[in-house]
Amino acid sequence: MKVYKYFLLFVALSTYINLYSQQRTLAEKLGYPKDAKLLILHADDAGVSHSEDSATIAAFEQKGITSSSIMVPCPWFAYAKQHPELDWGIHSTLTSEWKYYKWDGVLPSSEIPSLVSKDGYMYSSVEEFAKNAKPADVEKELRAQIEKATSFGIKLTHIDNHMGSILASPEMIAVYQKVGKEYHLPVLAPTNMIHMMAPQMAKYIDTNNIVVVDNFVSAYPAIGADKWKDFYNQTIQNLKPGLNEIIFHLAFDDDEMKAIAVDHPDFGAVWRQRDFEYVTSDEFKNLLKQNSIYLITWGDIQKVMYK
Amino acid sequence: MKVYKYFLLFVALSTYINLYSQQRTLAEKLGYPKDAKLLILHADDAGVSHSEDSATIAAFEQKGITSSSIMVPCPWFAYAKQHPELDWGIHSTLTSEWKYYKWDGVLPSSEIPSLVSKDGYMYSSVEEFAKNAKPADVEKELRAQIEKATSFGIKLTHIDNHMGSILASPEMIAVYQKVGKEYHLPVLAPTNMIHMMAPQMAKYIDTNNIVVVDNFVSAYPAIGADKWKDFYNQTIQNLKPGLNEIIFHLAFDDDEMKAIAVDHPDFGAVWRQRDFEYVTSDEFKNLLKQNSIYLITWGDIQKVMYK
Repeated sequence: MKVYKYFLLFVALSTYINLYSQQRTLAEKLGYPKDAKLLILHADDAGVSHSEDSATIAAFEQKGITSSSIMVPCPWFAYAKQHPELDWGIHSTLTSEWKYYKWDGVLPSSEIPSLVSKDGYMYSSVEEFAKNAKPADVEKELRAQIEKATSFGIKLTHIDNHMGSILASPEMIAVYQKVGKEYHLPVLAPTNMIHMMAPQMAKYIDTNNIVVVDNFVSAYPAIGADKWKDFYNQTIQNLKPGLNEIIFHLAFDDDEMKAIAVDHPDFGAVWRQRDFEYVTSDEFKNLLKQNSIYLITWGDIQKVMYK
Repeated sequence: MKVYKYFLLFVALSTYINLYSQQRTLAEKLGYPKDAKLLILHADDAGVSHSEDSATIAAFEQKGITSSSIMVPCPWFAYAKQHPELDWGIHSTLTSEWKYYKWDGVLPSSEIPSLVSKDGYMYSSVEEFAKNAKPADVEKELRAQIEKATSFGIKLTHIDNHMGSILASPEMIAVYQKVGKEYHLPVLAPTNMIHMMAPQMAKYIDTNNIVVVDNFVSAYPAIGADKWKDFYNQTIQNLKPGLNEIIFHLAFDDDEMKAIAVDHPDFGAVWRQRDFEYVTSDEFKNLLKQNSIYLITWGDIQKVMYK
């Protein structure tokens, strides 16, 4: 019984320390009230196309987003060089999902053979990736993407991952966390999403070394176009204290983006135009103000973690 | 004196044989009159962007061009798979000339180190390419581009070259001709252009193994937008018997193409839209008819040469 009591005390104490240190990190350390609702408005997939780049930069300029991450293996990645002042992370890219528009790794395929299919591009699906990819190749390619962006003069503020491929195994999650720590890049760990998408992986997230986003939100196909605004509006209205992130997929519904997303309606051109219209709307900005939300960037978090 | 006479006879005979065999190849062998004006209407740079692909395919459909060639290392190359029935060649690509929109080789950079700059992409200019590229790397990459296109189900009809990079040395010209012969791909040798651009290379063109285009025409910056139509119209009106090729650069003046060609007005988005409008105009098609011109494809030539 005595042991059990000590154990309970230990659990209570750990919880207290965890909560306390988490609050210090994520709100008070940033200079906000203890129970502040922090929110990162994040655009994924910068660099994938010109349509994506120009919508992302327009959204930054119109203050519809606070942060974005770049796909370094894609041909439009260097466009980010024009705006080194923005909050760019690495959208670590290990899959190439579109039908006719393809890319391979930053490293030669001979150095990352497990990441490249027989047609010479990264695998189209996370499933094929998970079946073939070796953690050592993932680590090499991840480092190469970070170093390439840095060598182009981009000051990285964080690291996240395209299509959740990196949740494929505990070893890959370990690589993700290790590399982030080494390069002083906060690593996105969308806890609620992991519990939903890959619950067996949750235990491998080291919450001491990684940024736990308490509430990670992304639109999904079942929402439907007519409920799009409602979904985001309700997300804003129901936001809880802690670190929140909404990820948007921004692009214009133009010829280039339509052709990229051909036969792939989810996350396609119309979807991305809809997201762009939402983040740049007055309705959205007013809602953010009315709900006392503090907009932050990954750069803010990086300063707290590594400076 | 006797020797001299025999020599003259030999020269006369050779010239006769050459002319005869050339005519057999390029007009009579195709079933046209001996002095036919043959013309290939060729669109360069397919695969480089969606704008380029869609303008090229629209021009094919509107019979404004008869042939095109694809840039295999570019992310939009696989788009050509949708139209295997068209006359596609390899636009052998050894340079990556745009500012923010970049590509590397089909082969891993570690296998073709002399073709890749320190930023991981092909060199931007022919000058840098010529200074660094080794013929052995050029040969490997050229073969890889041909094999990749073939493995994607595209039936290649010819081979030409992006930006004339391959004229950099006699050894590269030899590679170009050798590889073409081996894959049964007629090789474009634009004689008049070579005499103008790289006269010291003319002697390395083996006219027995290569297709000599007697008159190769491309618009150039000094023409000016207001004289564009006149330039092409006069080209058509003054066409001579033999094999002629006009190369066009087709794309739409849209956001994607404008962004690709940023800071690069020559061969930029406006230029390409202007070319597209010309090749799809009734004026152009009427001129072709009025001047008794026979439009042919590289596939026609390939059949004569290799079947």
